[in-house]
Amino acid sequence: MRICRFDNNQLGVVQGNDIYDVSAALALLPEQAYPFPGHDLLIANLESLRPRLMQLMENAPKKALTDVQLLAPVANPGKIIAAPVNYLKHLEEARADKEIHHANQIGEIQRVGLFLKANSSLIGVSQPVELAHPERRNDHEAEVVVVIGKTGRNIAAKDALQYVAGYCAGLDMTTRGPEERSMRKSIDTYTVLGPWLVTADEIPDPGSLAFRLTVNGEERQNANTKDLVIDIPHLIEFASSFYTLNPGDLIFTGTPEGVGPVEPGDRIEMELEGVGTIAVNVTTMETV
Amino acid sequence: MRICRFDNNQLGVVQGNDIYDVSAALALLPEQAYPFPGHDLLIANLESLRPRLMQLMENAPKKALTDVQLLAPVANPGKIIAAPVNYLKHLEEARADKEIHHANQIGEIQRVGLFLKANSSLIGVSQPVELAHPERRNDHEAEVVVVIGKTGRNIAAKDALQYVAGYCAGLDMTTRGPEERSMRKSIDTYTVLGPWLVTADEIPDPGSLAFRLTVNGEERQNANTKDLVIDIPHLIEFASSFYTLNPGDLIFTGTPEGVGPVEPGDRIEMELEGVGTIAVNVTTMETV
Repeated sequence: MRICRFDNNQLGVVQGNDIYDVSAALALLPEQAYPFPGHDLLIANLESLRPRLMQLMENAPKKALTDVQLLAPVANPGKIIAAPVNYLKHLEEARADKEIHHANQIGEIQRVGLFLKANSSLIGVSQPVELAHPERRNDHEAEVVVVIGKTGRNIAAKDALQYVAGYCAGLDMTTRGPEERSMRKSIDTYTVLGPWLVTADEIPDPGSLAFRLTVNGEERQNANTKDLVIDIPHLIEFASSFYTLNPGDLIFTGTPEGVGPVEPGDRIEMELEGVGTIAVNVTTMETV
Repeated sequence: MRICRFDNNQLGVVQGNDIYDVSAALALLPEQAYPFPGHDLLIANLESLRPRLMQLMENAPKKALTDVQLLAPVANPGKIIAAPVNYLKHLEEARADKEIHHANQIGEIQRVGLFLKANSSLIGVSQPVELAHPERRNDHEAEVVVVIGKTGRNIAAKDALQYVAGYCAGLDMTTRGPEERSMRKSIDTYTVLGPWLVTADEIPDPGSLAFRLTVNGEERQNANTKDLVIDIPHLIEFASSFYTLNPGDLIFTGTPEGVGPVEPGDRIEMELEGVGTIAVNVTTMETV
């Protein structure tokens, strides 16, 4: 099932080029007063909502995908985790290019660990990426994103895929510079998620997903998750050995070789096998 | 005003050794359905709630501080930002001690930037810190914490204190090792906040706050925010040049020299001028 969020926080199921508006299902979510849960309420209840979503689709209002604004498919992630240098050829290019490494050591992922991106940086594909520091180099990084479906800590790799709600395409936009990744990659709009969430049952082998990224139609990145240094089950094991994973937590699994700069006016497209295509425009931040 | 959260998500005002239960004021918060805001709803509305809090106190049920469990005073921070190496003498000790630097470069804060801690690591002072990797060195880091009160981006230092709702004491607990700070400092229970929030009007000069930390009664850290490398207004300027700050966002302002290891069974106390004292026990994570 392909779940999207669109327009004014509506909930949709995508089939072909259409969206079925199943927002009525949101009324089944448990009521919450302040304080709110530290996880995403929709993702936590997605399995139990599925029969209702199927039922609603029979008479749901239908819209063309081209007529809606797609929002980030996960509205309230507890945290956004990301894997640095998780493809060997990207590690090599990062070490070779001073404009990427900025005199910082670029270590293997097993040593560097995972980093965090701010929730306030998250957008869907209908919003542009706004460069905040256009005087610096700002790179695209195409990534496969795992959406966690249930709470777990110290999860063994062999059990890890049971904790996955689904998958999205993602852009881990990056301002180059000397600062820690968790700052440079947390600028507003620098975490693109979409176009929708494809539930895990539709992706039998996340360890073999092809994806490619183009800028203005020119290919920059072309890779497959089979070349991940730490694969998805072991990323979940690694992350959950440090912190509890909760429904709606996102894991950006790392970008392959071919990262490069974008400029205002560019259009970035990423195509992910089994999921779909995301396309965003690049602009500059409006001065406040 | 000293605002606390306690027991079963109750809201309190602290005076002396007593808590006035003003939970009835929570009914004035705007109703929210999924998706929830990316900021803390109580902090966003704190100023407008103040008259009601004062009014409720006249007839509020009263409890002794010793009879309640204090929760983190901010329930739903959008993000937890933290400043590394923001006291010169701590930079010197970090560079001198292999057990702290782990062969990583320790740069000046202006170069390293700020990092993030996971929201899932946040606890109040009535919960113990649970060491997840007791085979590694786990350090206490006493810090003054700023609670952001309103939304802003690209905030100038001269205006920055207008964006502060209040202050807390905090512990930025840290597992040493080679990984990025945003992973090692995001273990569940590794972000201690408390004992309550003191509103900004009671702290006329956050640039001159004394604080000290003891472990089992023995002094380990003793410092003053006047020795911050980047002071609080400039931390807010720096952070907001990368991302929007929202009500309830926390800024851990950095720890001074004297960091050191703690072990299960230890008791950490931190006393912060104008705010109060937090005390937490150290234990090990229950195996799941």
